[in-house]
Amino acid sequence: MNEDNARFCLLAGLILLYLLCGAAIFSALEHPFELRARRLWKQQLDNFTQRYRVNLGALHTLLRQYEEANGAGIRVDTLRPRWDFSGAFYFVGTVVSTIGFGMTTPATIAGKIFLIFYGLIGCAATILFFNLFLERIITMLAYIMRWCHERRLRCAGVGVVSSREESSGEEDSLEGWKPSVYYVMLILGVASIVIACSASTLYSSMENWSYVDSLYFCFVAFSTIGFGDLVSSQRQQYESQEAYRLGNCLFILMGVCCIYSLFNVISIIIKQTLNWIVGKLVCSGHHQLQKRLKRNTVQPIASHCPAGRHRYTEGSVETVCDSETDAGAVADGVCVGRRLSGEMISVNEFMVSNKVSLALLQKQLSETAHQGPRQSYGHQNGFSGGVGALAIMNNRLQETSVDR
Amino acid sequence: MNEDNARFCLLAGLILLYLLCGAAIFSALEHPFELRARRLWKQQLDNFTQRYRVNLGALHTLLRQYEEANGAGIRVDTLRPRWDFSGAFYFVGTVVSTIGFGMTTPATIAGKIFLIFYGLIGCAATILFFNLFLERIITMLAYIMRWCHERRLRCAGVGVVSSREESSGEEDSLEGWKPSVYYVMLILGVASIVIACSASTLYSSMENWSYVDSLYFCFVAFSTIGFGDLVSSQRQQYESQEAYRLGNCLFILMGVCCIYSLFNVISIIIKQTLNWIVGKLVCSGHHQLQKRLKRNTVQPIASHCPAGRHRYTEGSVETVCDSETDAGAVADGVCVGRRLSGEMISVNEFMVSNKVSLALLQKQLSETAHQGPRQSYGHQNGFSGGVGALAIMNNRLQETSVDR
Repeated sequence: MNEDNARFCLLAGLILLYLLCGAAIFSALEHPFELRARRLWKQQLDNFTQRYRVNLGALHTLLRQYEEANGAGIRVDTLRPRWDFSGAFYFVGTVVSTIGFGMTTPATIAGKIFLIFYGLIGCAATILFFNLFLERIITMLAYIMRWCHERRLRCAGVGVVSSREESSGEEDSLEGWKPSVYYVMLILGVASIVIACSASTLYSSMENWSYVDSLYFCFVAFSTIGFGDLVSSQRQQYESQEAYRLGNCLFILMGVCCIYSLFNVISIIIKQTLNWIVGKLVCSGHHQLQKRLKRNTVQPIASHCPAGRHRYTEGSVETVCDSETDAGAVADGVCVGRRLSGEMISVNEFMVSNKVSLALLQKQLSETAHQGPRQSYGHQNGFSGGVGALAIMNNRLQETSVDR
Repeated sequence: MNEDNARFCLLAGLILLYLLCGAAIFSALEHPFELRARRLWKQQLDNFTQRYRVNLGALHTLLRQYEEANGAGIRVDTLRPRWDFSGAFYFVGTVVSTIGFGMTTPATIAGKIFLIFYGLIGCAATILFFNLFLERIITMLAYIMRWCHERRLRCAGVGVVSSREESSGEEDSLEGWKPSVYYVMLILGVASIVIACSASTLYSSMENWSYVDSLYFCFVAFSTIGFGDLVSSQRQQYESQEAYRLGNCLFILMGVCCIYSLFNVISIIIKQTLNWIVGKLVCSGHHQLQKRLKRNTVQPIASHCPAGRHRYTEGSVETVCDSETDAGAVADGVCVGRRLSGEMISVNEFMVSNKVSLALLQKQLSETAHQGPRQSYGHQNGFSGGVGALAIMNNRLQETSVDR
């Protein structure tokens, strides 16, 4: 099993573990409420049948009919029409964004079949839109961050002339400066919180939801989960309805874009963490192996991370792991090429160390296809015992990830 | 406005148009059914109140209570418990995959707040999982495609020895061969259809849904829209329940991975089409401009696409647009560097022409940050009239996109 496979499996395993933990916690939190709700409903139903002497079977039939009517968007308290133009527009918006509240769903066969083809193109186009948005927003953020960094340097240079040498001791800080992905995450996170809070203020006043409910709705909508237990802009009448509907659309659009970007940035950090874990496992595994083979003749190389590398840690850059010197000490010749992610994770480094993107991986696969089955090198990690298509590809991938 | 902005705006405009058209069509398809359902429900309600002489107000109260009970997952026909461990596991699965059927939703405040934090990490991890899956599947597909291509070449070489010269006339076909993204789309599309059809067979037999309903459910679930009007595995008892639950999970997992990959591949093709449109607009715009400036002294360069480039069209490679010679004729000096996407779109070319990916764009932004505000070149397109941060970045982006 090579590193890429290991990382994939590690992630799958961690997600499974995460799901199991989540299931246990949610079960503990929500199960009592479910039982209470069930008791309450039984009592209400009993009260009603006793008071009006209604046959329970007939009432059940009515309730089943009501469920069906619910599916067509009918409630006791009149809601906005589902399939007038504005309702249908809201609906297609939830389709292409994959939010899918489900407050409106196609009921006819023609509608259902059309939805499949409509959604196929629409969702793909929206994914592209989100990606282009992400591209623009990150470029902008990096420029702003650079501008701030420059200004800070200039201010420091002007303000404290005596510390010039110290300043130049930071040998051309601007050259070495890299926009850190943690800052991008921070900024996107703050932007998301600001949008969610503003939107929640709007929703809680317009929909009479509690603020927590509004925040919950915002997260569920912006992350495109879209349960549909709370859906905004569903009543028939609001004060200043048109403005509210427009504001609702804009908030959801901004929120979805922002949270999408945030998810992607977080996923990159998760990937970096996984790389680090896999790298550490590989390194220690090799160390063990070589120890066993060479009987302690391994010379640990000097730590990968001289103190000078931490030049910018004063800029509140977090490190994924502090045990890096430990990892560096473990590193032997096999692991020299490997980047240990205890270092500052910068946007620049992602470019090299992350192959999340389709574009990059496509380049890689194209290389794979052109280089063909060459197995001569790429054995540095000792993991290339496998044969067949996957093994060859993996070797090739390994090479590239080690070389860089 | 530079090309990147133009493309972004073009996409936004097209999506808006797409939404408007979709809203009109869905409204036309579904509105009659909504009215019919409304009439039907009114009639059923009237029947019931008349027959049992129930006060309508009291019945409405009961129905409101039923709506609330519905929110806690209570139906007339008993469903599986919502918040036992397996139900909670299904729930967290719909959260992290952002399907969000909404058949189960947290009702307590603690549950809602926990959901926000749980979903934030979970969704990011799942996005990473999908991306890693995409990486693996596309690498595998490219390898298989290359293998098939090699085999076909070898067969042709062995089978028809006399046509050797013709074969070598295709000067090292293997070297020039690129895995086309259309094949990848085709294969992923076929895989999605196979998975959806198998899953639909299962669902229609287990849930007593019609086959169209099952297909509709599959699309809604796999695309992570997740309306929740149809949700699998909700009844209390099934034959061979454990096997069905496992099969349900596996089908949804496979389907979501496959459709996610398909969406991404389609989004790349959409992007390529957008690039082509923007390129054509820019070219013709320039042509017009230069015409006006130079009064028809422009010498159109020879077509970008000699017939020899279509070497592989027999492999059923589609072309985005056939009017490419037209576009090539329009192309003048300004547009030489520009790639016209009438050519075969190959995976390799995406690497150069697409900046969808975070990784690539991060490299770019890092370059932007390091090069700083240099405005000396990048004026080839004549669109760099703007000033300020965005204009500078855009110039830089333009350069890279033109240079490559």
